[in-house]
Amino acid sequence: MSKPSKKSALKVQPGVEGVESLNPLLAKKVKRQKRLSAEALVKGILAGDITFLSKAITLIESTRKADKLLSQDVISACLPHSGNSIRLGITGVPGAGKSTFIESFGKYLIHQHKKKVAVLAIDPSSNKTGGSILGDKTRMESLSIEKDAFIRPSPSAGSLGGVARKTRESILLCEAAGFDIIIIETVGVGQSETAVKNMVDFFMLLLISGAGDELQGMKRGIMEMADGIWINKADGDNMRKAKIAAADVKRALHLFPADTRGWIVPASTCSALKEIGLNEMWASILDYKILTNESGFFNANRSNQLESWLKESIQEDVLNSFYENTKVQSALKQIKDEVADLRKTPFQAAEKLLEIYRKED
Amino acid sequence: MSKPSKKSALKVQPGVEGVESLNPLLAKKVKRQKRLSAEALVKGILAGDITFLSKAITLIESTRKADKLLSQDVISACLPHSGNSIRLGITGVPGAGKSTFIESFGKYLIHQHKKKVAVLAIDPSSNKTGGSILGDKTRMESLSIEKDAFIRPSPSAGSLGGVARKTRESILLCEAAGFDIIIIETVGVGQSETAVKNMVDFFMLLLISGAGDELQGMKRGIMEMADGIWINKADGDNMRKAKIAAADVKRALHLFPADTRGWIVPASTCSALKEIGLNEMWASILDYKILTNESGFFNANRSNQLESWLKESIQEDVLNSFYENTKVQSALKQIKDEVADLRKTPFQAAEKLLEIYRKED
Repeated sequence: MSKPSKKSALKVQPGVEGVESLNPLLAKKVKRQKRLSAEALVKGILAGDITFLSKAITLIESTRKADKLLSQDVISACLPHSGNSIRLGITGVPGAGKSTFIESFGKYLIHQHKKKVAVLAIDPSSNKTGGSILGDKTRMESLSIEKDAFIRPSPSAGSLGGVARKTRESILLCEAAGFDIIIIETVGVGQSETAVKNMVDFFMLLLISGAGDELQGMKRGIMEMADGIWINKADGDNMRKAKIAAADVKRALHLFPADTRGWIVPASTCSALKEIGLNEMWASILDYKILTNESGFFNANRSNQLESWLKESIQEDVLNSFYENTKVQSALKQIKDEVADLRKTPFQAAEKLLEIYRKED
Repeated sequence: MSKPSKKSALKVQPGVEGVESLNPLLAKKVKRQKRLSAEALVKGILAGDITFLSKAITLIESTRKADKLLSQDVISACLPHSGNSIRLGITGVPGAGKSTFIESFGKYLIHQHKKKVAVLAIDPSSNKTGGSILGDKTRMESLSIEKDAFIRPSPSAGSLGGVARKTRESILLCEAAGFDIIIIETVGVGQSETAVKNMVDFFMLLLISGAGDELQGMKRGIMEMADGIWINKADGDNMRKAKIAAADVKRALHLFPADTRGWIVPASTCSALKEIGLNEMWASILDYKILTNESGFFNANRSNQLESWLKESIQEDVLNSFYENTKVQSALKQIKDEVADLRKTPFQAAEKLLEIYRKED
C-alpha cells in the first residue's frame, strides 16, 4: 500500500507516482483513517484522475483484507456514477491482431468520436505463464500515450472467478472516472471468453482469413457468443480472401438458432492496420445499442449480469470463509486421507467438514 | 421410494420390480430401519444383482435427504469393492453414431472378452430438453438384453456438478457389482466432456468423415482431451474418406504439445455397424492401461480425480448449506434488490449474507 505497485499504471503522469506522493499529509491519513482515503480516492476518480483510478484498481487487486474492504468502499461510492458506457468484449483467434486492432479502434473512437477509452484485460492464465502479455508496457504504446485512454494490465494471478470479479469492479471505476467505452480483452483461452461475454454489452470476435479451418473451427462456441464478427487484416492482397472468409462466416451464422433479440450478427471485414472498416464497425455497435435499448434487452442483460456477479461473489466468499476456517483447515488433511484410502465417500467427507465449519462459532 | 421409479432400470428381470417386491417384510423394514436396508442393498450389489444396483442408483439420484444419506451408507460399504474396472469415457460429434458404437463395442467386450459392461450417461441438459435421450428405452436395445450388460439412463435434471457426482457414485456401485468395463457417455455438449474426462481412465472421441470442418473443428478442445480418436462409419464407400479423415486427425494431433505420459494418442478408423476395428481399439485401450500402470499414471490419475471430486462435493455441500439456510433465504431478496439498485456492491452483499449465515448457530 505505501509503495506504488509497479503494475499500478501503464500511464503515470510526470511527477505523480501515487496518492501518497500527491499529498504527504493525506498519505499519513490513509494509514490512520480508511474512510478519508476512500473519499479521497472517490473524489479523484470522479474528477477523472487516472492516477487515483489506477490506485483504486490496485486496491481491488490486492489480496490484503484491509485493501479489499477499502476498495469496496470506493466501489460502493462510485456505483451511482457507473454504467454510462458501452462495454465491449473483444476476443480473437491467435494472430488475429487483437492488440493492433484495439489500438486502432481505440484511437479512432478518441479522435473521431471524442470518446474516452479504457482497456482492461482478463487473463486467468497469467499465473501459469509467469506474466501477462498485457503486462508488457510496450504493448499498445500509441494508444497508451493518448490523453483520453487508460490501459490497465490484467490483474495478476488468481482463479478465473477472482480475475472476473476484479475486472468487473474495475469497469465500474473506469465508468465513474468518465470513460465512455470500456474494452475488455480476453487474453486467456477457453473459459475467459464466457467470463467476458458475461460482463459486456457487445461481444466482438476477430478472425483472419487462412488461419486454417481447425483454428477457426475451435472458435465455433465463441462464434455463438459473438454480437459481431470481423475478419481483420482485410487489406492489400489479402482483401479478397478476407471477403470470402466473411461470407463463410455469414453462412455459418445462418446455421445457428435465430437470435431472440432480433439482432442480425454482422460478419464483415476490417483492417486495423489501415484503419479500414472502423466506421462500419462503430455503426454496428451503435445500431445494436439502439435496438437493444428499445427492446429493453440492454438493461435486462446488465441486470442479469449483475445478478450472476452476485452469485459468483457469494460462491467465492462462502468458499473462502470455509477454507480459511482454522478448524476446517486442521481437519482437512485427515479427511482427505480418509477419502484417498476409500474410508469415506467424498460426500461423507464434505458433510463432516461442513459440520466442523458450522460448529465454529 | 415405495414405488419403483419408471426410470430405475432399463432392464427389469421378470417378476422382479424392486427391492420391496422381492421381500415385503424387507420393504417394511426399509422404512423403519435404514441400516438394514443399506446392508440388504450392499449384499445384493456385491452379489451382482442388477435390481439392487438399480435401486441403489435410484437412491443416489433422489433429492430426498433420507435417501441421500442411505445411499451414502451403501456407497461407503461398496467403496472397498470398487475400482476394479476400466472406466471409459465416450464422446463424439453429432451423427458420429455413438449409441450404435456403444452397443457394438459393448457386445464385443461381452462376447469376445467375457466382460461385464455398464453404460452410464452424463446429460446435464436433460432438464432443459425435457427428457434425456437415453431415457428412451428403445435405445441400445440389443445391448440391453445382454445378461452381462447394465444400461442406466442419465440422472434426471440437475446442475452439471450434481449430475457428475451422481455418475461418479454410480460408477463405484457398478464396480462393486462386478462390472469390468464402465462406459460413461456424454450426452450434453460443452462442459459435460470435461466432467467425463475427469472421472474416466480413458477418454474416446468418435468422429466421422465429411461432417464438415466446422463441425469437427468445434471439437478441437475435446481432441486435446482424448486418449484415442476413431473415425466411425469406416465401411463400404465411406472407407477411403474415413482413412483420409483419420490421417488428418493424426496430423492435427502432431500440433498438440507432447503427451507427458509418453502416450501416442491413436487416431484410427472403425465401423460400429460392421464391427470393424473393435479389436484394434480394445488393444489400444489395454496398451494404454499397461503403459500407465507401469508409469504409475493410472493410479495417480484416479487419486487426482478423487481429490477433485472431494473438492466439488465440498463446494456443492457448502453452497447448499448456505442457500438452504432460512435466515439467508429471508435476507436474500432484499439484498438482491440492493445490488440491483446499486446500493451495495456484490462483494458487500456477499459479505453481509455470509455474516448472516455464520451467525445462525
